[in-house]
Amino acid sequence: MNEASALPQTGAELRAAVRAGRFRGATSGAAPDFVQTNVAILPRDLAFDFLVFCQRNPKPCPVIEVLQAGQVEALLSAPGSDIRTDVPGYRVYRAGALVDEPWNLGAWWRDDLVTFLLGCSFTFEHALIRNGIRVPYYGTCRNVSMFITNIQTRPAGGFGGPMVVSMRWIPRDKVIRAVQTTSRFPAVHGAPVHIGDPARIGIPDVQRPDFGDPWPPESPDDVPVFWACGVTPQAVAMASKPRLMITHAPGHMFVTDLKDEDLAVL
Amino acid sequence: MNEASALPQTGAELRAAVRAGRFRGATSGAAPDFVQTNVAILPRDLAFDFLVFCQRNPKPCPVIEVLQAGQVEALLSAPGSDIRTDVPGYRVYRAGALVDEPWNLGAWWRDDLVTFLLGCSFTFEHALIRNGIRVPYYGTCRNVSMFITNIQTRPAGGFGGPMVVSMRWIPRDKVIRAVQTTSRFPAVHGAPVHIGDPARIGIPDVQRPDFGDPWPPESPDDVPVFWACGVTPQAVAMASKPRLMITHAPGHMFVTDLKDEDLAVL
Repeated sequence: MNEASALPQTGAELRAAVRAGRFRGATSGAAPDFVQTNVAILPRDLAFDFLVFCQRNPKPCPVIEVLQAGQVEALLSAPGSDIRTDVPGYRVYRAGALVDEPWNLGAWWRDDLVTFLLGCSFTFEHALIRNGIRVPYYGTCRNVSMFITNIQTRPAGGFGGPMVVSMRWIPRDKVIRAVQTTSRFPAVHGAPVHIGDPARIGIPDVQRPDFGDPWPPESPDDVPVFWACGVTPQAVAMASKPRLMITHAPGHMFVTDLKDEDLAVL
Repeated sequence: MNEASALPQTGAELRAAVRAGRFRGATSGAAPDFVQTNVAILPRDLAFDFLVFCQRNPKPCPVIEVLQAGQVEALLSAPGSDIRTDVPGYRVYRAGALVDEPWNLGAWWRDDLVTFLLGCSFTFEHALIRNGIRVPYYGTCRNVSMFITNIQTRPAGGFGGPMVVSMRWIPRDKVIRAVQTTSRFPAVHGAPVHIGDPARIGIPDVQRPDFGDPWPPESPDDVPVFWACGVTPQAVAMASKPRLMITHAPGHMFVTDLKDEDLAVL
């Protein structure tokens, strides 16, 4: 619903457009090179256990910034932002049930809410593209394939459950490059968790994703490669049925002022 | 006080020797290749803010594991361990004042205490040595030079203050290799924070360290290189004068079952 030609080019422009109601919808392809994040907002009494859970599971749950109770501005990654207005789509859950999909959090915000900004695979997808590896859904309305695996996360407090992964078909002669490229970004899922055999991680059929859209391979030489996915922390938090939890709508990310390369370790 | 020939060779052996009273003293050079950690133990009501502080300052405060309130075993990094008995020297502070230096925490342990295991530069020092870069104090009773800088950490709650760095003289033709080598280990301080000009980071005299021992350069071609230091989180926590805080004695680290290479990202 947003014209590509008019897409905001920086995180600050995108957030301003969202706040003014000029931008709605998925953020893939908007503000290219700026770090986009998953959003999870929880009451303060759950925040420590959830942060420990993220620390124990850094591949699926890479923390970009934590906004302390009542804090609405991401001071470090997006100065001037307001988490109540700058996400282009929210979901509000009570005890695990979806109760609202507001455009802003005016009716829901409370001073005991702690916001977690969690890394998103868009960052390493940009890196894959720069390295000549095609990401077919990039900039489209369709989404990567995601699967619930038999890989268990390390629990903390009431949080735990299986890891969710995203899958991309990678040409066999680019698999090594894909590992190298994504290893540079440990703050946004990093290296793959598995290459080549979906059944080994509990995926019976790669054409039937648990979330997102199915993608067929483009060539018999394509290899399925799996990365830890930012859906994991949301799924894990939801499974604990917190009395209140707020997230972004799928694909409707919070966009920061950080550049993708700011997160590279080497 | 421990014979090098008899030094424990694994983290588990070292912890068993400490628990049995057979090992006392600094751990540099013991259990080579096993990850050693700084220890900070705080009451539960300070734990969330301290963990957010660490998340905001990952270079000086790399979290290896968090043991939740009352948990004494590092289940992930050192199964079978007991944080009350397995550190070869503790310090107990009340409101910032040192009140005890026990060999175990029998008299001090409480079920509301949260333990943070924080990365230590020993890991990347092993990597420097493997890359032909000398670390003159390695395996001796002397310590690296450490300095309080003018680099401010990003505060969280009541925690904040200047970054502490460690300094190593690196031959000019090995500086690039030192950056590459330590960049592989973002979980233990990672790449240097400064190369070459101590005054620029607020250090008036590299021969007068704030902590540790002074080290002269070995050659006029040696360059001073500075890394974020694990003393930072202790200094920051201490400055907030928590009513109770327990740490390891300097150089007397908690040794895990993780291998140094487990922490490498590439």
